[in-house]
Amino acid sequence: MAKPLNIGMIGYGFMGRAHSNAYRKVNHFFDLEHEPVLKAVCARDAAKAQAFADKWGYESIETDWRKLIARPDIDAVDICTPNNLHRDIALAAAAAGKMILCEKPLAMNVAEGEEMTAAVEKAGVPNIVWYNYRRVPAVTLAKKLIEEGRLGRIFHYRAVFLQDWTISTDLPQGGTALWRLDAAAAGSGVTGDLLAHCIDTALWLNGSISTVSAMTETFIKERKHTLTGKVEPVKIDDACAFLARFDNGSLATFESTRYARGHKALYTFEINGEKASIQWDLHDLHRLNYFDHGDESKLRGWRSIHVTDHGGGHPYMDKWWVPGLQIGYEHSFVHQVADFLEGVAKGQPVGPTFRDALETQKVCDAVLSSAQSGSWVKV
Amino acid sequence: MAKPLNIGMIGYGFMGRAHSNAYRKVNHFFDLEHEPVLKAVCARDAAKAQAFADKWGYESIETDWRKLIARPDIDAVDICTPNNLHRDIALAAAAAGKMILCEKPLAMNVAEGEEMTAAVEKAGVPNIVWYNYRRVPAVTLAKKLIEEGRLGRIFHYRAVFLQDWTISTDLPQGGTALWRLDAAAAGSGVTGDLLAHCIDTALWLNGSISTVSAMTETFIKERKHTLTGKVEPVKIDDACAFLARFDNGSLATFESTRYARGHKALYTFEINGEKASIQWDLHDLHRLNYFDHGDESKLRGWRSIHVTDHGGGHPYMDKWWVPGLQIGYEHSFVHQVADFLEGVAKGQPVGPTFRDALETQKVCDAVLSSAQSGSWVKV
Amino acid sequence: MAKPLNIGMIGYGFMGRAHSNAYRKVNHFFDLEHEPVLKAVCARDAAKAQAFADKWGYESIETDWRKLIARPDIDAVDICTPNNLHRDIALAAAAAGKMILCEKPLAMNVAEGEEMTAAVEKAGVPNIVWYNYRRVPAVTLAKKLIEEGRLGRIFHYRAVFLQDWTISTDLPQGGTALWRLDAAAAGSGVTGDLLAHCIDTALWLNGSISTVSAMTETFIKERKHTLTGKVEPVKIDDACAFLARFDNGSLATFESTRYARGHKALYTFEINGEKASIQWDLHDLHRLNYFDHGDESKLRGWRSIHVTDHGGGHPYMDKWWVPGLQIGYEHSFVHQVADFLEGVAKGQPVGPTFRDALETQKVCDAVLSSAQSGSWVKV
Amino acid sequence: MAKPLNIGMIGYGFMGRAHSNAYRKVNHFFDLEHEPVLKAVCARDAAKAQAFADKWGYESIETDWRKLIARPDIDAVDICTPNNLHRDIALAAAAAGKMILCEKPLAMNVAEGEEMTAAVEKAGVPNIVWYNYRRVPAVTLAKKLIEEGRLGRIFHYRAVFLQDWTISTDLPQGGTALWRLDAAAAGSGVTGDLLAHCIDTALWLNGSISTVSAMTETFIKERKHTLTGKVEPVKIDDACAFLARFDNGSLATFESTRYARGHKALYTFEINGEKASIQWDLHDLHRLNYFDHGDESKLRGWRSIHVTDHGGGHPYMDKWWVPGLQIGYEHSFVHQVADFLEGVAKGQPVGPTFRDALETQKVCDAVLSSAQSGSWVKV
Repeated sequence: MAKPLNIGMIGYGFMGRAHSNAYRKVNHFFDLEHEPVLKAVCARDAAKAQAFADKWGYESIETDWRKLIARPDIDAVDICTPNNLHRDIALAAAAAGKMILCEKPLAMNVAEGEEMTAAVEKAGVPNIVWYNYRRVPAVTLAKKLIEEGRLGRIFHYRAVFLQDWTISTDLPQGGTALWRLDAAAAGSGVTGDLLAHCIDTALWLNGSISTVSAMTETFIKERKHTLTGKVEPVKIDDACAFLARFDNGSLATFESTRYARGHKALYTFEINGEKASIQWDLHDLHRLNYFDHGDESKLRGWRSIHVTDHGGGHPYMDKWWVPGLQIGYEHSFVHQVADFLEGVAKGQPVGPTFRDALETQKVCDAVLSSAQSGSWVKV
Repeated sequence: MAKPLNIGMIGYGFMGRAHSNAYRKVNHFFDLEHEPVLKAVCARDAAKAQAFADKWGYESIETDWRKLIARPDIDAVDICTPNNLHRDIALAAAAAGKMILCEKPLAMNVAEGEEMTAAVEKAGVPNIVWYNYRRVPAVTLAKKLIEEGRLGRIFHYRAVFLQDWTISTDLPQGGTALWRLDAAAAGSGVTGDLLAHCIDTALWLNGSISTVSAMTETFIKERKHTLTGKVEPVKIDDACAFLARFDNGSLATFESTRYARGHKALYTFEINGEKASIQWDLHDLHRLNYFDHGDESKLRGWRSIHVTDHGGGHPYMDKWWVPGLQIGYEHSFVHQVADFLEGVAKGQPVGPTFRDALETQKVCDAVLSSAQSGSWVKV
Repeated sequence: MAKPLNIGMIGYGFMGRAHSNAYRKVNHFFDLEHEPVLKAVCARDAAKAQAFADKWGYESIETDWRKLIARPDIDAVDICTPNNLHRDIALAAAAAGKMILCEKPLAMNVAEGEEMTAAVEKAGVPNIVWYNYRRVPAVTLAKKLIEEGRLGRIFHYRAVFLQDWTISTDLPQGGTALWRLDAAAAGSGVTGDLLAHCIDTALWLNGSISTVSAMTETFIKERKHTLTGKVEPVKIDDACAFLARFDNGSLATFESTRYARGHKALYTFEINGEKASIQWDLHDLHRLNYFDHGDESKLRGWRSIHVTDHGGGHPYMDKWWVPGLQIGYEHSFVHQVADFLEGVAKGQPVGPTFRDALETQKVCDAVLSSAQSGSWVKV
Repeated sequence: MAKPLNIGMIGYGFMGRAHSNAYRKVNHFFDLEHEPVLKAVCARDAAKAQAFADKWGYESIETDWRKLIARPDIDAVDICTPNNLHRDIALAAAAAGKMILCEKPLAMNVAEGEEMTAAVEKAGVPNIVWYNYRRVPAVTLAKKLIEEGRLGRIFHYRAVFLQDWTISTDLPQGGTALWRLDAAAAGSGVTGDLLAHCIDTALWLNGSISTVSAMTETFIKERKHTLTGKVEPVKIDDACAFLARFDNGSLATFESTRYARGHKALYTFEINGEKASIQWDLHDLHRLNYFDHGDESKLRGWRSIHVTDHGGGHPYMDKWWVPGLQIGYEHSFVHQVADFLEGVAKGQPVGPTFRDALETQKVCDAVLSSAQSGSWVKV
């Protein structure tokens, strides 16, 4: 029988659900030494915490995250709060010797991120950040292809993350539901929320970014604030685009926005190498597009790979259904839990660690700084 | 708290996993009066049954399905066995007053199907057949559009279900893993396995089929039989195509095969109406293509609807994640359980019932009969 | 300098334009021994003939096709009339020793087609039928791949030709513009007009068809006739679908209709072989989809080949622009003229000859006969 | 009968063919007051000029462009030479009172462009620049939709032009075939060649660009020079990307490269407005993708509009074939000639004029200047 690994979750929003689902499912599909146990969920509002616990089968609730961290029956702390609480919780959890699974972006800024990274490394606790898209099978396959050297020298990287949910001027900012629009809770707008995903994937697939030139814009300048009830200036970036150069000599463009009408969560990336190119798209996440210049010339074309095969080496897919049957968004979290637990069993770190996520934070900070100064900024 | 509804599952293969997952997930996402409890799983091999029970959290095992049905702590029997056992189990379960969730196709033939339907109706037990594709949100949306009259008079229906997994001559037939290739266990080949799905959807969306003209083929004539170890004639249909006329005057073509190189599970349908048309495709199941002739002429085009929106009325999607994030194959089973449990709570039948599935069976039998006689056959 | 080859065209409709354009363009792009000269165009209405001649640069007009055929300065007769005139014109042209380029379908029925074929073969004149889709580069590439044995044993062929232009009940039948809806002028409806294209391609790519089972339908039973001004029964088939078996053992489905809302000219075909599969689609005619099972398993996917490359062996494309720049519908006619002229120069027949087109006619007649009898019919 | 308008073409390369084809075809499809007559083609090499003249039907040749301009029988001069000759020829042609059709980019730089614009405006001669993509029907339709106000406030514009033909290090630079790789002949690399197209379209669709921040790269630093036979530094930009802000407040990213493996001529643009969004792609140039937020919410999706309809108001398409049948790249040139001739008949300027193209030149110069300085540059 699998050994229990007791989870204490702080926060219960969209990510709280995605993580809880992953903990509940993982052992049905993966053979693991450990099994997550939903020990406690923590939220300031006891009624809401209890409702969430009932829904997902958490054994207990807490209303003070410090108490949750202090509990000896908690092995791992899962941080699903708004960004402005990540640092304090992570430092306390590390000090208490807990494993930490932290939502992205790691921190409000590089300074916080460095503190947090130092803390987990000093404590020697397993730590991971929920950049879940690395573990969409098509994305993991892309990584594999790059590691196998199939793309050759890389010339170009381009990524966008496009949404359209904040176009209406009637949408308020702040509060539980809309903290992502409140700079005090979120730190930044699309840069930390969406571009951070693009950057994490890019660093993973294509190595370090050396310099960036960015621009940001806030299209709707004022919105009613949910907490104060008043119309207040919007301080987050509604859109952000930047040029970048990677250490490997490739050029990149990155863009994200919540004002791209027609796109709900269109995260796409494309990598052009000397020998082959790759495209991926979150709206059809179970497919990878691949162009191989090595193909016979009259038969060259972009291959639409339905990443659902088993024997074929499609990552993770042998754990699920049968070839041709797609999985979805939630499965990336299940894969992350499975890999994390395997790392725990082997005593090995599993990325993206806090240190990996700190690199993403550095790019985010450089991007915001460049957007402000109008100059190229070194990461 | 939700009331427990105790499940006794017979069989533990691919469908056993899909159903178990649905039972485990449904209450995390849907607010329901009942909660399925995994009471017992039954398989002839005790070790395999126990392994499955451990994996999925079944409280007990049985090795004789008659004992499982006899247990007073079982409320509902889920039949996941090969097709040749459906009838006996269903008759016994109905006699015992159990609710029944039966895998498709309902039976080996119409005669069995009629017996089974009579039995559940006489017993008055809730009954449903796992034609799960009705509850892929894009398919459910298609149904909604048709019911709203958006397509107008229907002229054409076409559906295919294409796979390529039996092309190799080395593949054996029969046994636990490959009973679908054994006529004794499966009844028919692609007709009952794949076309039955296409027919169920078609009857649901477009009404009754009146006549059919069919052809079948067995491309690989002999295969080694797993059970006997000998090379034996293959008695199932490897491929089947048929023409049909619906009662509403529309024409149809249907085709399925396991010899369509490049397709793993490409179930597609298209409906052409006077005012609008619809397309769907299992390989990108989260999308519905829709053409509306009512659109302004210069802007008419097939719309690729990413069926992941909430407020917008995309069926089931408000239970899951956020707009733009896709779900997958397994979720259709979760939806079926949710709907079934809602029907139980309200005391209302939920389709596809045994009676609905009997209609599909009638078309399957007519198709096989037409393929044999070379004539048009009335359903 | 290229030798003149004097064209006499009979008819001036849609096809008259497509052919004239091809004659005018071909020598700008292809190096040929001959150059078509637009010597005369023939139509019953002198004013219309003259207007067409002025537009396209025909040197003269005729109003009686027999006179055109009798002219010694005409080398080749191009038959662009409604189908009911093909036979008489072809017989006369053959008797006069003219080369013949005849619009498809070859004839009103097999009997006429046999007469015509015998006539051109007896006369020994170069003859070709305008099944132009063979010479869309992507289709020609498909032929090449099959000839190279890349698909292996063929299991399935499926083709549809879908239009939606006759759905309105207000559309009249007959007359110059709408002769395709008039059985007296067209012979049949979609069978001769659209399915004939599908069949020609299929016979070319996949060999002979042995047996068929068909159904036809006339959805709108009566329409005003343009010539009589009265509401009259519609005698053509609005839709036709059939099952077929090829001599090579593969199974097929074919369908065409003018009632498929949302499709203007969606001719598609797919061929599934043991080793590879192919798809093509007239709405994006410059692409070929290709799946190769020989690809490394984790990288298998349908390739979308943009058939615009030069060195790569994409047929005809080195004559046009640069890689990536697509050609369109009209170019298939230019290619046919180029190939025909090359055949003339070499004294070799170029398909589809009248004899090739007669085979298509035989399938069409078998299809219509099967639709009437409700039985399988041998071709 | 149409009035002759005598064309004198200078240059005979890829563009010489594209323009000659347009002149030859335009009156077959469009009803115009004028008809282009291919009077003379000019090239330094008499044999090559004669071969081109023979192929296309030019009545005479010249080997000195000054002589061609001096001929009284030339009405319009078409400049198809490498970029470094545009200025001198245009100034001479304007001084001689000739109409001018000049290949893009207008000039080597803004200074030249201003001289040329002043010259044609002083001379009062009709003038146009061959930014042909404006007249792909799908792109013209996009313009129409924007002018009708369907997109509302614009938030984002993004465009790329991706090729892969210079990845091989073996490719030389310079000479007749490869002057686009020679800075002395071309001025710049992808910026003037590819981005200029993207910028022209963008200014036309979305108004003026105010500021840019750019980066360029030369991936292959040295190539053999065709003219000198020596390995020499490559001075053009292989790739260029830039951020931009438009006067209307929208943000943009632009990128072009000849190192994007898998793309031959992938020019794409997307515009996101408050109410609707548009996408277009040169590889499938006959389609426009359109998302309308005004659609009923459950039916919202990107529409793939096959821009081949007639009555529907698809620009130019009523001149060609029938709905569903696509045209290609070359037709954009035919449309430009048709529009130009109509402007001549009406005495009205037709864009893109030299003045329009000068605006594009200003953006190109700003982009190259920003790439050098590393700062944002005002246009």
